[in-house]
Amino acid sequence: MERYAFGVDVGGTTIKLGLFSEDGTLLEKWEIPTRRAQGGAMLLPDIAESLTGAAARHGLAREAICGVGLGVPGAVTAGRHVAPCVNLDGWGGDVGAALEQRCGLRVSVVNDANAAALGEMWRGGGAGRRDLVFLTLGTGVGGGVIVDGRLLGGVHGCGGELGHIKVHAHEPEPCGCGKRGCLEQYASATGLVRTARALLETTARPSALREIPLDAKAVFDCARAGDALALEAVARLADTLGQALAAVSCVCDPEIFVLGGGVSAAGDILLQAVEAAFRRYAFPPAEGTRFALARLGNEAGIYGCAKLALDAAE
Amino acid sequence: MERYAFGVDVGGTTIKLGLFSEDGTLLEKWEIPTRRAQGGAMLLPDIAESLTGAAARHGLAREAICGVGLGVPGAVTAGRHVAPCVNLDGWGGDVGAALEQRCGLRVSVVNDANAAALGEMWRGGGAGRRDLVFLTLGTGVGGGVIVDGRLLGGVHGCGGELGHIKVHAHEPEPCGCGKRGCLEQYASATGLVRTARALLETTARPSALREIPLDAKAVFDCARAGDALALEAVARLADTLGQALAAVSCVCDPEIFVLGGGVSAAGDILLQAVEAAFRRYAFPPAEGTRFALARLGNEAGIYGCAKLALDAAE
Repeated sequence: MERYAFGVDVGGTTIKLGLFSEDGTLLEKWEIPTRRAQGGAMLLPDIAESLTGAAARHGLAREAICGVGLGVPGAVTAGRHVAPCVNLDGWGGDVGAALEQRCGLRVSVVNDANAAALGEMWRGGGAGRRDLVFLTLGTGVGGGVIVDGRLLGGVHGCGGELGHIKVHAHEPEPCGCGKRGCLEQYASATGLVRTARALLETTARPSALREIPLDAKAVFDCARAGDALALEAVARLADTLGQALAAVSCVCDPEIFVLGGGVSAAGDILLQAVEAAFRRYAFPPAEGTRFALARLGNEAGIYGCAKLALDAAE
Repeated sequence: MERYAFGVDVGGTTIKLGLFSEDGTLLEKWEIPTRRAQGGAMLLPDIAESLTGAAARHGLAREAICGVGLGVPGAVTAGRHVAPCVNLDGWGGDVGAALEQRCGLRVSVVNDANAAALGEMWRGGGAGRRDLVFLTLGTGVGGGVIVDGRLLGGVHGCGGELGHIKVHAHEPEPCGCGKRGCLEQYASATGLVRTARALLETTARPSALREIPLDAKAVFDCARAGDALALEAVARLADTLGQALAAVSCVCDPEIFVLGGGVSAAGDILLQAVEAAFRRYAFPPAEGTRFALARLGNEAGIYGCAKLALDAAE
């Protein structure tokens, strides 16, 4: 009998859902709004109803569905307990058991960036690998570490929290986490803009960035056009990121790093610079570690959630 | 039937061997010299002969011996291939298969610092834990990462090479690995002495260290006696080490860090300073990660090798 699984990625604005067959084919994807009122009391009922409807729509018997992978924007401990999610007004707790009760399917819970890592390993930029580190470079920096095909969640749910590796001990501004000098402060879209702004404000160097609204895409576009100041901002991001990934490599020594998130849309100009920086800092035997861009975009989460549900059913 | 395993830790000068019962009792330990002549051609014959003799001495049938864990001072890939060992004049290759052929026992091969991590988890400072990071602070800095009871060896054999995490981007002196700014340059015995010497040479500050031969033990002894310059050297080591371990925590988020090696003989004065530094740099949910001193000294390797052999036989 063909087996199926649902991937559910809970975000601050929308919940993405997908139905997958066990070979990784996405049969249907859809979204529902995230109703955050009343501490998120409607989240699980909404998800359960949506899943039940999809199963009926596809004529799937309960026995054909292995389970549900639920991705959440927060730390997950002991494989199921969700710490209060900042982006969901404190929603959290043992949401896996609660959803199981509502939909009658086995539920696996996972941090959303970790889920994206698993998705990229299954059907994305890391397909065919089993030892992979994924980084999502967006407003913040998240990540996931996979060793021998399994996610490394961590004892406090902090496995793969690569955005909070300290890279600059003397940073004066605080990170969102309250500490200073986190990778996220330099390698996110926000970080790139901050670096470019500092270069613009502290020097009189000419740059096309002085004429246009400053965002991460503008910095990469100008860098690609040869703008020296934009190139320096990208080089600084790449250097910091390469150094952090070299540290990651000394811990878990993966086969491949996969870069995703909005910043990675810059493509090869980013990938090549990060790879070169990594080689400068890496322990020599690991210098040849591969780099790739993510391929699943914002569907990586539902792919990874479904994969987790399939793995859990084995 | 009670089961047994041998742990064999190959060092540059001596080979340490131990016979263990499966509950972790060390029944006998002994050493043989490391004969490095002829590219180490005698190493495996010497080990095989020594193991055969021990089995006979204890009246153990072949079936009662699960196998041999072989710890080597180099990178191990694909669970058995040993890269040429610098400290053993280039000895390496598929030494596991070669030893199996000679002694008729199943052989598991492991990096020596990784083996020590496993030993400390089994019967040392991390006993009872399954998610542990071990650091050995000696002439150099080595390490081992254990996730859910299993060593993380890495794709290039660099899993747990924590001594080569880059911590100071602007270090002018090269590390033994050829790169610059590695943790090992600051957190080893050599690194501590280097820091103390720099403080003595670049300042006129009074210090008892000016009157005695400078080594790591002298720095810790003076720090314990309240010598301000020695205290600063220890504080710098602790700060650098705490920052590196905070990065490790963002990757694999262990339950406990276990510190071993000669430098860790300093005891609580080191442990408390490192723990405080870790908390300054750690991602907040992981701030409570525990710290402990290693307990097995230089027997950690044979313990871990034997544990690996027992695990492999399951």
